Amino acid sequence: MNQVDFINGKTRVFGIVGDPIEQVRSPEMVTWEFQQRQHNAVLIPIHVARDDFDDVIPEIMRVRNLDGLIFTIPFKVKAMGLAKTLGPQASLVGAINAIKRQRNGDWRGEIFDGMGCVEAFKRRGIALKDKRIQLIGLGGAGSAICVAIAQEYPALMRLFDLNEQSTEHMVKLVKQISPKTVVEIGLPRCDEIDILMNASPVGMLSDERLPLTAEKFDQNLVVFDAIVMPENTPLLQLAQHCGCEVVRGREMMLGQISRLVDYFLVP
Amino acid sequence: MNQVDFINGKTRVFGIVGDPIEQVRSPEMVTWEFQQRQHNAVLIPIHVARDDFDDVIPEIMRVRNLDGLIFTIPFKVKAMGLAKTLGPQASLVGAINAIKRQRNGDWRGEIFDGMGCVEAFKRRGIALKDKRIQLIGLGGAGSAICVAIAQEYPALMRLFDLNEQSTEHMVKLVKQISPKTVVEIGLPRCDEIDILMNASPVGMLSDERLPLTAEKFDQNLVVFDAIVMPENTPLLQLAQHCGCEVVRGREMMLGQISRLVDYFLVP
Repeated sequence: MNQVDFINGKTRVFGIVGDPIEQVRSPEMVTWEFQQRQHNAVLIPIHVARDDFDDVIPEIMRVRNLDGLIFTIPFKVKAMGLAKTLGPQASLVGAINAIKRQRNGDWRGEIFDGMGCVEAFKRRGIALKDKRIQLIGLGGAGSAICVAIAQEYPALMRLFDLNEQSTEHMVKLVKQISPKTVVEIGLPRCDEIDILMNASPVGMLSDERLPLTAEKFDQNLVVFDAIVMPENTPLLQLAQHCGCEVVRGREMMLGQISRLVDYFLVP
Repeated sequence: MNQVDFINGKTRVFGIVGDPIEQVRSPEMVTWEFQQRQHNAVLIPIHVARDDFDDVIPEIMRVRNLDGLIFTIPFKVKAMGLAKTLGPQASLVGAINAIKRQRNGDWRGEIFDGMGCVEAFKRRGIALKDKRIQLIGLGGAGSAICVAIAQEYPALMRLFDLNEQSTEHMVKLVKQISPKTVVEIGLPRCDEIDILMNASPVGMLSDERLPLTAEKFDQNLVVFDAIVMPENTPLLQLAQHCGCEVVRGREMMLGQISRLVDYFLVP
């Protein structure tokens, strides 16, 4: 044979841009999703040094068979400048994590963290509509999650972030998206809610803290953590110990990949 | 699983640059060769418009996990300017068709058409040393083939090209590389030779001509054609009809890929 069956001259190219790059998971996950959908495309890692980004990326975007890019650390903020138009989520959140080439040649930006979280709940069959939700952390991923959840029209959203300005901005945004949702601000609590969501970095890697003060959870509480490493954060360990249903960061990542590929494949 | 096993964050990236790009074969062939050697790398098609080349390619070369590029039509001449140093074949031929990043960060150019041809003969067990060879066509691939063959020290090389200047330049080069080889110029003939080689475009696609005037060949003659499409050129059809051993363009391409991957994988 002398050949492989996943790449040829007609293959469309996508990339994830970051520095460092070796830790990213989207090359295998997005490429797998392309294969499942029988689309001749690969997503490659693109390692660009911080100082090279502004010169290199606009030129890479002129490659004719390159159809989309994902941006990861430290380029999420810089990427915003590359999109000529923004999708609905990105317009609300004010940030993007991917761009795609449209049929007219213009590049359009969108953010998928929030959609990935909502998709993860959908796949579990857990509706967010009319639920009471505590969300902890309104940074990059957190603000995207906040917007996407508001679009599901929950009954209550309690928001907490160390940055008061972000919190107030998000309160306004939630009220604008879903006027009937009750929005509260304050230290995170686990009482009188149906779903507890962590989008803060507390509990990541070897951080053994919980993102809120709690010793036990009601077993009817659903607990979500956006953190991917470790898979079982201290928060999720406690939740499982209390008999709660848990939704993991990995599920959000899978949900995000699915929505991202939907986006990439519709011109 | 939700993943594939041929690409991840650690994958090294190579590319072939051309316009158009869909017809190229190296993405599947070179990537297959990487896989055979258990090297985590892919070679992707990179479609760059003619007018974009000078802006785009130098920036793509700053991508940190990009280790090499192949150049095809119409960029073989322009590519020369991207190499800081040249390999031994490229220095002699004065052209390149690939560059790789060296350990010190500099890009080095080399040309593989000639090496691929010699490799094809080696794999068939046909020595070129002390043979009498007629070579037709001294263009891009032809001049590279001419140099690579001279390095095998044949007894005689008869050269023909419509461009007299190229022909005279090649005569000098062959004499320099292999002083004992007898070099002749003139219309191509099939008498008093052991190997007949076509590196001209005559016989390509639907061209039904032979690259020389001949009605039959001695059955001991070995006949090579650099043309890949069609696989059986009019020249090779006649040769097979006469009972000659034939070496095909596809074998040269495979030989070239093998040598190219050797080159790419040695830093």
